[in-house]
Amino acid sequence: MTITTVGLDADDTLWHNETIFRLTQTRFLELLSEHDTEAVQQRLAEVERRNLRLYGYGVKGFTLSMIETAMEMCGGDPPSGAIREILAAGREMLAHPVETLPGVDEALARLSERHRLVLITKGDLLDQERKLAASGLGDLFAAIEIVSEKDRSTYERIFARHGTGAEEAVMAGNSMKSDVLPALQAGAFAVHIPYAITWAHELADAPEGHTRYGALHSIEQLPDWIEEQQRSFD
Amino acid sequence: MTITTVGLDADDTLWHNETIFRLTQTRFLELLSEHDTEAVQQRLAEVERRNLRLYGYGVKGFTLSMIETAMEMCGGDPPSGAIREILAAGREMLAHPVETLPGVDEALARLSERHRLVLITKGDLLDQERKLAASGLGDLFAAIEIVSEKDRSTYERIFARHGTGAEEAVMAGNSMKSDVLPALQAGAFAVHIPYAITWAHELADAPEGHTRYGALHSIEQLPDWIEEQQRSFD
Repeated sequence: MTITTVGLDADDTLWHNETIFRLTQTRFLELLSEHDTEAVQQRLAEVERRNLRLYGYGVKGFTLSMIETAMEMCGGDPPSGAIREILAAGREMLAHPVETLPGVDEALARLSERHRLVLITKGDLLDQERKLAASGLGDLFAAIEIVSEKDRSTYERIFARHGTGAEEAVMAGNSMKSDVLPALQAGAFAVHIPYAITWAHELADAPEGHTRYGALHSIEQLPDWIEEQQRSFD
Repeated sequence: MTITTVGLDADDTLWHNETIFRLTQTRFLELLSEHDTEAVQQRLAEVERRNLRLYGYGVKGFTLSMIETAMEMCGGDPPSGAIREILAAGREMLAHPVETLPGVDEALARLSERHRLVLITKGDLLDQERKLAASGLGDLFAAIEIVSEKDRSTYERIFARHGTGAEEAVMAGNSMKSDVLPALQAGAFAVHIPYAITWAHELADAPEGHTRYGALHSIEQLPDWIEEQQRSFD
């Protein structure tokens, strides 16, 4: 068989992202250091979850949720300068330099010789476009899909539109929940390439004994993995 | 000639939007009523313009800009409850019912019989998807393009991808700056259908004596206008 299309997640698959969120969160906890750190963390996670339905994914929603958490923790009266600091931290995230992960450039160059590459990512539209431009990887992709949710139908739709259907596609990314499981449900191959840390909302168990599932340590192994699948499914 | 594809803007072309921003802004001005209304308005416009490059378009960026403006106007110490009120106002905008403009349903139903309809809009990804779903108009569109900017290349790309090129496409919307001028530059027809009010950042002069430009009072006139163009360009 031929795998015509390779879908790739962006944040924490092609470049560092969660690290930047965590650094900002540390800064946020310092601003509220009068309060119990664990209580603040827990409240922030609650506020984020509550707002996800309205805000979706990305830096702007995260910034708004930090402000809301600060207001709630401090009875509406946060320490002087805290809100301004949070706004500044959010803007810095949106202007943060993009650092691609080791091996990404070589792996994508190899993959693009034999497959149609599609970037499939959640997050703020403008921010993801900016990061892709800054990464210098844009020209390797046949299509860019910035989506509000990654579920089975998302992958069915994208691999039908930009490829030859999910059956002949691979999705690779760091999130078991968003990149791997729904892509397998859509009938695609799926590869989990974990990042050092994972956002709590993206955690899920690995699929057991699925013939189209793979787990790799690095994106460098992806081209060979795909070749193996093509041979073994023939 | 045949016009195969019709691009349609969403906010203030298919449904009310700017009205909701203005209502929220009025509420915001009331929160800061200790200050000169005009000074607050001016500062908000400045903050929005400054942040546009980082936040892009949409409710989340607008909410963050309102908070930043409140902090700046009040020397970092806004009136009790103001930040919470702004956050609540932002969330309410994101949950606001969608009210389609008069004649939209009929016009789109007629247009979809003869043309491929493409929704082309800026704004927050999730919010625009929500509004389209709530409008009940989703099934009439062959494609949805939520973009971070509307310039000449945006229209070239979209009309090439979803149609037969800009030459055989019309773009219709309420913004001279975003919907009309760049679509004309791309070689498409373009129709201005003004909304009652226009955001300052979307103002621009009408093109003079352009053979592919039209101005209509209502979207109801769009199907007939397109038929006329097809006849007169034959």
